[in-house]
Amino acid sequence: MEFTVRQIATLLGGEVEGDETLPIRNIAKIEEGATGDISFLANLKYEQHLYTTGASAVIVNRSFRPQKPVTASLIYVDNSYSAFTQLLEQYYQQINYARTGVEEPAYMGAGSSTGDGIYRGAFSYIGRNCRLGNNVKIYPHAYIGDNVSIGDGTIIHAGARILRDCVIGRHCVIHGNAVIGSEGFGFAPQPDGTYKTIPQLGNVILEDHVNVGSGTTIDCATMGSTIIRRGAKLDNLIQIGHNVEIGQNTVIAAQSGVSGSTKIGANCVIGGQVGFAGHLVIADGTKVGAQSGVGKNVTETNTAINSSPAFGLKESMRSLAVFRKLPDLDRRLTDLEKKTNK
Amino acid sequence: MEFTVRQIATLLGGEVEGDETLPIRNIAKIEEGATGDISFLANLKYEQHLYTTGASAVIVNRSFRPQKPVTASLIYVDNSYSAFTQLLEQYYQQINYARTGVEEPAYMGAGSSTGDGIYRGAFSYIGRNCRLGNNVKIYPHAYIGDNVSIGDGTIIHAGARILRDCVIGRHCVIHGNAVIGSEGFGFAPQPDGTYKTIPQLGNVILEDHVNVGSGTTIDCATMGSTIIRRGAKLDNLIQIGHNVEIGQNTVIAAQSGVSGSTKIGANCVIGGQVGFAGHLVIADGTKVGAQSGVGKNVTETNTAINSSPAFGLKESMRSLAVFRKLPDLDRRLTDLEKKTNK
Amino acid sequence: MEFTVRQIATLLGGEVEGDETLPIRNIAKIEEGATGDISFLANLKYEQHLYTTGASAVIVNRSFRPQKPVTASLIYVDNSYSAFTQLLEQYYQQINYARTGVEEPAYMGAGSSTGDGIYRGAFSYIGRNCRLGNNVKIYPHAYIGDNVSIGDGTIIHAGARILRDCVIGRHCVIHGNAVIGSEGFGFAPQPDGTYKTIPQLGNVILEDHVNVGSGTTIDCATMGSTIIRRGAKLDNLIQIGHNVEIGQNTVIAAQSGVSGSTKIGANCVIGGQVGFAGHLVIADGTKVGAQSGVGKNVTETNTAINSSPAFGLKESMRSLAVFRKLPDLDRRLTDLEKKTNK
Repeated sequence: MEFTVRQIATLLGGEVEGDETLPIRNIAKIEEGATGDISFLANLKYEQHLYTTGASAVIVNRSFRPQKPVTASLIYVDNSYSAFTQLLEQYYQQINYARTGVEEPAYMGAGSSTGDGIYRGAFSYIGRNCRLGNNVKIYPHAYIGDNVSIGDGTIIHAGARILRDCVIGRHCVIHGNAVIGSEGFGFAPQPDGTYKTIPQLGNVILEDHVNVGSGTTIDCATMGSTIIRRGAKLDNLIQIGHNVEIGQNTVIAAQSGVSGSTKIGANCVIGGQVGFAGHLVIADGTKVGAQSGVGKNVTETNTAINSSPAFGLKESMRSLAVFRKLPDLDRRLTDLEKKTNK
Repeated sequence: MEFTVRQIATLLGGEVEGDETLPIRNIAKIEEGATGDISFLANLKYEQHLYTTGASAVIVNRSFRPQKPVTASLIYVDNSYSAFTQLLEQYYQQINYARTGVEEPAYMGAGSSTGDGIYRGAFSYIGRNCRLGNNVKIYPHAYIGDNVSIGDGTIIHAGARILRDCVIGRHCVIHGNAVIGSEGFGFAPQPDGTYKTIPQLGNVILEDHVNVGSGTTIDCATMGSTIIRRGAKLDNLIQIGHNVEIGQNTVIAAQSGVSGSTKIGANCVIGGQVGFAGHLVIADGTKVGAQSGVGKNVTETNTAINSSPAFGLKESMRSLAVFRKLPDLDRRLTDLEKKTNK
Repeated sequence: MEFTVRQIATLLGGEVEGDETLPIRNIAKIEEGATGDISFLANLKYEQHLYTTGASAVIVNRSFRPQKPVTASLIYVDNSYSAFTQLLEQYYQQINYARTGVEEPAYMGAGSSTGDGIYRGAFSYIGRNCRLGNNVKIYPHAYIGDNVSIGDGTIIHAGARILRDCVIGRHCVIHGNAVIGSEGFGFAPQPDGTYKTIPQLGNVILEDHVNVGSGTTIDCATMGSTIIRRGAKLDNLIQIGHNVEIGQNTVIAAQSGVSGSTKIGANCVIGGQVGFAGHLVIADGTKVGAQSGVGKNVTETNTAINSSPAFGLKESMRSLAVFRKLPDLDRRLTDLEKKTNK
């Protein structure tokens, strides 16, 4: 971005003290601010940074009065924290959604249509018979297979792959190099030791407001759909197997994996590097500690589990505490045996 | 796909009862069928779904007689299950292999040649001196480096990278964003704490009928070849280090990693999120439980191992069972100590 | 490559015995050499391979005299091992850095500039206001967002994504399909169970001589920078969260993950599939065993830790040894209880 201090003050409904013409290009913490940066001061604990910051402008509360000289321009607003947050979001929108139009060369197959405010980056590929809504942003090198539909306001970042027949909701964000809808791992063992490919013909459905991290892979269903429910957030490098269902508002941290046909409920919180076996049912509100291995159904809602194989979080913490003193236990047991056998 | 009920009946050698002109666009389970779908009924346990299905057509056995009115068109065949399977495979072929020709712009370097029935998607890149066989399908954004050869009937999906000098067999499937032949992790520590890059100059060889999942990475050998033997199946997000060898018909589940120079035998079954240390030799038919860490050679064929570090599956299950009651063991031991010291 | 034996001898300052005109296309171990390959003999333990090798040429020491007839051409040099290493590096340079110029179509946005000796592969994308140094190599399908700077001699391999505002140092190597600078996992839970996106507006800074493996993802900072210090080496499929810092010359093996805001010191050695919780500080020289889960700060330098959750390496090895005989411990305890209760 590049705005003047005055333009930002106008946006935030604030008044300027100092140079209104300074250019602002970036947003920074007050203690890290440099020329061209804008920052904010809300908590007076950080007031001393105001007098030493290199930032060009600082947003402060209307009630605030500096105790020493300040080199930065000040923008006075009712609530400096919420004004700053508003600025962050404005900037975020600007970075991600402002771009429109088609950069050539870009490819779009027969029978596909796009809505208003679309961006199609150079070298992006859209197959046949796709339906893209309004304000959809397709970044360079993104690949959209045949018969895909994408809802309003969704971003497909550089190099993401959305394969044939997938249905992507509104206001989703698919990060770079994610792969959605590729063939699941379906191989039937044959008598001679080889494997026969089981055709994977289903798709993936992402409901609205779903986040898919960079490098994450979501396999299509064998038949039917792999489903990621509304508001679910998947971090980077996650693997979702065929016919899996991830519940509404469930969040999964990076590098976790969910095997085929497992259904994870709503509002679950899954740590990083967790693994789920296939064909499980996990209740709503389940919390799973990082690096756990989940091998059984979780039937009670709001259960916290941990360890590999996973069991109750509290019980696992107690077992892990004893694990660390196992050599001591062994020694104590040997001592007792000696005493008893005397 | 889009066929009429009559066209499908002809393909399967069946007779139609009902409307022959209905269009069929998709394949579905009988209980999930909707307009445009075709399904099948083999096991009479599911007969009730026939009378309520929304599918446009259902494949049934010639010997079958409906007990109630059916709205779907029926296609009578000798064996409905095998006819349906045939249809799945036909459809799968259609989706994956029907495409031919070159979509522009596509890049091919000097000295490279392609066989009959090739597909080169828009924005696909083929380097210099490559040899591509018949019916090879190169999807958009796929990258093929210099001096690569690819056998007949192999599919390279969108965004997959096959680096210089690699040799890919016949009837392989390389899924989206896989990276084959990139430089392994070769760095020699120097006296000053820095690392010097060890040139990685070998390649990767995939024999015939190998599957490489989405986002999986296979490093080239330092010298010589990293080798994936005939019929091996690798799932998504797997890491294969330099100079590794994966045996014939071995299957590896998602997110597992194999460190440099380890040789895994034939017909092994490796769970998800497993790690192998480097320079190991793993016997044919080894089974490794999910999330295991394999740090030692496996010398006896058909051994099942588990846990991190991995040991015998049965032994590990017994240890894990006691692990869960460790706090209890600790308490029992303390009780005994009190008694004995009285 | 393709050189004659004579050309290579001239490069290495050696003399040829045998046919000087043979073409050399590849480098191989002496026991695996075939027509067109060059190899070397340094350790006389391997001398017998010299008489049976299929290689076209072998580099030997000037002091060496063959005891039997040799079919390969011999190149005599002062030190055959270091001459061979020199050849490896020459070849490596050739493969990776020789390419220059722009393959069309390639995209470069307004206000971007490149130095001398640049390579921009077909379908590569460079955004607006980027600064690329001398001898930067941008392979096909690489994506460089707006306002990115890349130092001299850095390679961006096929399909790597460098997002807006990132700063990449000199002599870095970014491997295929890595994603640098994508949005971290920032979601604030709302009272209704949904999550609100926290704008991620910072960048990623890679200092000089950093290696980023294939498929590795490095998130941008929320504000400020995620930083990978000079000489750090990251293997494939690693996840680095927002605001993380990785110290100078630290190496991390494949599939490890570092959660947001954790600072890892210099000269650390991290095994594969390791996980770090967020907001930790890890001292310089820390060594972490493969598959460990690090949940606490490491305050003492040069500590070795292991297991999940991680503690001292030696202690963990002892606990793991007892873990394997837990069923036996249980039995011994039960026996003692019986005796004592008699």
